[in-house]
Amino acid sequence: MKPYSKLSKEELHNLKEQLEKQYEEVKKKGLNLDMSRGKPSKAQLDLSNGLMDVLTGDCNLVSSEGVDCRNYGVLDGIAEARKLLADMSEVPERNILIYGNSSLNVMFDTVARAMSCGIMGHTPWAKLKKVKFLCPVPGYDRHFGITELFGIEMINVPLYETGPDMDMVEKLVSQDASVKGIWCVPKYSNPTGVSYSDETVRRFARLKPAAEDFRIFWDNAYSIHHLYDDRRDVILEILNECVKAGNTDMVFKFISTSKVSFPGSGIAALAASRANIEDAKEYMKYQTIGHDKLNQLRHVRFFKDMQGMYEHMRKHAKILRPKFEMVENVLERELGGLGIGTWTKPLGGYFMSFDSLDGCAKKIVAKAKDAGLIMTAAGATYPYGKDPHDSNIRIAPSFPTVEELELATEIFVLSVKLVSIEKLLSA
Amino acid sequence: MKPYSKLSKEELHNLKEQLEKQYEEVKKKGLNLDMSRGKPSKAQLDLSNGLMDVLTGDCNLVSSEGVDCRNYGVLDGIAEARKLLADMSEVPERNILIYGNSSLNVMFDTVARAMSCGIMGHTPWAKLKKVKFLCPVPGYDRHFGITELFGIEMINVPLYETGPDMDMVEKLVSQDASVKGIWCVPKYSNPTGVSYSDETVRRFARLKPAAEDFRIFWDNAYSIHHLYDDRRDVILEILNECVKAGNTDMVFKFISTSKVSFPGSGIAALAASRANIEDAKEYMKYQTIGHDKLNQLRHVRFFKDMQGMYEHMRKHAKILRPKFEMVENVLERELGGLGIGTWTKPLGGYFMSFDSLDGCAKKIVAKAKDAGLIMTAAGATYPYGKDPHDSNIRIAPSFPTVEELELATEIFVLSVKLVSIEKLLSA
Repeated sequence: MKPYSKLSKEELHNLKEQLEKQYEEVKKKGLNLDMSRGKPSKAQLDLSNGLMDVLTGDCNLVSSEGVDCRNYGVLDGIAEARKLLADMSEVPERNILIYGNSSLNVMFDTVARAMSCGIMGHTPWAKLKKVKFLCPVPGYDRHFGITELFGIEMINVPLYETGPDMDMVEKLVSQDASVKGIWCVPKYSNPTGVSYSDETVRRFARLKPAAEDFRIFWDNAYSIHHLYDDRRDVILEILNECVKAGNTDMVFKFISTSKVSFPGSGIAALAASRANIEDAKEYMKYQTIGHDKLNQLRHVRFFKDMQGMYEHMRKHAKILRPKFEMVENVLERELGGLGIGTWTKPLGGYFMSFDSLDGCAKKIVAKAKDAGLIMTAAGATYPYGKDPHDSNIRIAPSFPTVEELELATEIFVLSVKLVSIEKLLSA
Repeated sequence: MKPYSKLSKEELHNLKEQLEKQYEEVKKKGLNLDMSRGKPSKAQLDLSNGLMDVLTGDCNLVSSEGVDCRNYGVLDGIAEARKLLADMSEVPERNILIYGNSSLNVMFDTVARAMSCGIMGHTPWAKLKKVKFLCPVPGYDRHFGITELFGIEMINVPLYETGPDMDMVEKLVSQDASVKGIWCVPKYSNPTGVSYSDETVRRFARLKPAAEDFRIFWDNAYSIHHLYDDRRDVILEILNECVKAGNTDMVFKFISTSKVSFPGSGIAALAASRANIEDAKEYMKYQTIGHDKLNQLRHVRFFKDMQGMYEHMRKHAKILRPKFEMVENVLERELGGLGIGTWTKPLGGYFMSFDSLDGCAKKIVAKAKDAGLIMTAAGATYPYGKDPHDSNIRIAPSFPTVEELELATEIFVLSVKLVSIEKLLSA
């Protein structure tokens, strides 16, 4: 295909007319499609229905350490749940603290705790004049929401194929003591699908922060969420790298089973140095007598161990793979070579990321919406909802069926083409 | 029995010698008894085992409003769970917001939110020079823990048979704008078992706070936790009374199923005016995508409605009643008329409260511990762990068996007698 930029004004006008007809045809269908959120599909949820059956019929509800999981107690989680989530996080059990039903809540809680009580004896962030977080972009809107709520200033850091711009990260973290954290999704990043290179992880572990209470917020949401058996991203384990670099306390890792078992009914954990875990427990003991131990037991009984979880994730992959491939195929077929957009082809996770010509993302999302397709709001992948280039759009292929995705992606590319032509014509 | 105060020094010495022998005999048994925490017993937990069976076998996991409870979403709780907890709280459904697994966490979260973000547009409490809470005493240690963690100054208010000293409450609340809250357990209060009179509830509802963001923290933990069918405390519904008094937004009610189903695996809620609910949701949307909807559904399927819950509570009562009566009987038999202690005889809840001679509580708890009986730490029922009279001891009869309770209460009265004699002899 000839790039749109090489087309004459007349050719562009003709193309536009033709595409508008197609667009009006689609619009008439009154469709209601959604590629906006990373929700598992019904078929994926069905994979975990067995969770509902493992604690039934007056079965033994006592943990391996003899705790009646029905009663109060056990602040840090039952031993077998700590073991399972430790294995999932690739850290020793002593570095795990089990929380409630989602890692989003663990992250919120960790920031809230730092704000009101401080980290490991340091001044509460709420008492400082200025607190800043680095935000690799594009990134996850709910991360940015937490830091915005607490009035933390967010600084964009470009996210490359290898991870965040580490020159910039090193400079800001070492020179500015008001930089207290950085949001990272190190594997199959939301939304680009990028995984951090070994070099990036090592540079993270070797940071020399100006602030002693600087922490890397390492949201390993997609640690075992591969799409393929034979092609997988592998990343270095950050806590171990931090120990090796003498920065034992510098990282908070977050993990959950939300996209493994049932979203909202999973179990979540913080993985960190023992000093950080003790510090978190010191606050947690005022918050709760304990999290839902029956749900912890339910997860252990269902998955048994990491082998069980890996096998389960292969079933998820079998459902998700054709969906990602459908979107990629339509994008390639319809937009390949046109020079009006680029997109990522991740090997795992829940998202793909699309970059349009500058200044087109909001219009593309609006145009898609008019034809019955909901996309994540343009800008959502940036702090304060402000994409400086207005070009990034997150694509979430998990929830619709393959058939719906084909239709949805066709609406999407039609919208991309039309908005791009308008831009080129007005240039 | 002759009051100890009427005994001569010689009589006291003889009695002491005799009691010390008994105490040494008990000590030799090497017992390990616990009357410290309000934990349901195994027999009580068994009552709810059916909860584990109601969502099994690929049954319908869709809510009444068509929500797949396995997936993300529904911030405020599924409709049928809101209905059940609204009925339990005696408020309309629109005044209910479902949270996670315990009301302690809802209370923590509500104070944390007021500290960092403020209530309904008012200045965040963390930005004020001074924030104070009124604390009816004796009260619940975990309430005091939350306010202490956030640096809120706690002011003791005497708790009478009818509820807190309302003259003092009215005066402090109306004159001091730094008074932002009061902790209340209005029914079968922890630890005294007192329930607030209608007059007390009405005076609460008619408060004229100096601070617009003053809130009554109404922890209705034992709303349906009666011990008897024929003798029950009934209290006025505070939210409705507040509406009538033109103070619609002045109360936060907290409720949970922790001592109805399984502690730690229950569901909890905030009940408040619609404006307060919207304010809480505005914060909650950053914390979570939603709480555990499957556990909400599980509770509704198991209890069905309030009638089902009332019947369930009668089964709890049947197990708890003989325990409370055993403690009361031993106390009456052993201490009646001695003038060295008074105790409450509640009609519901989880606790009794014992008042020794001044300056004896810590020593009694220590003496009981030496003989193998754990009691709640003396002082725990007061802010900062400081009982000004060192006289209040909380008794939690729920967890041990009736046989263990008899033994435990005998150790307790022996400890009370010995410490009281020591005090009288040294006077």
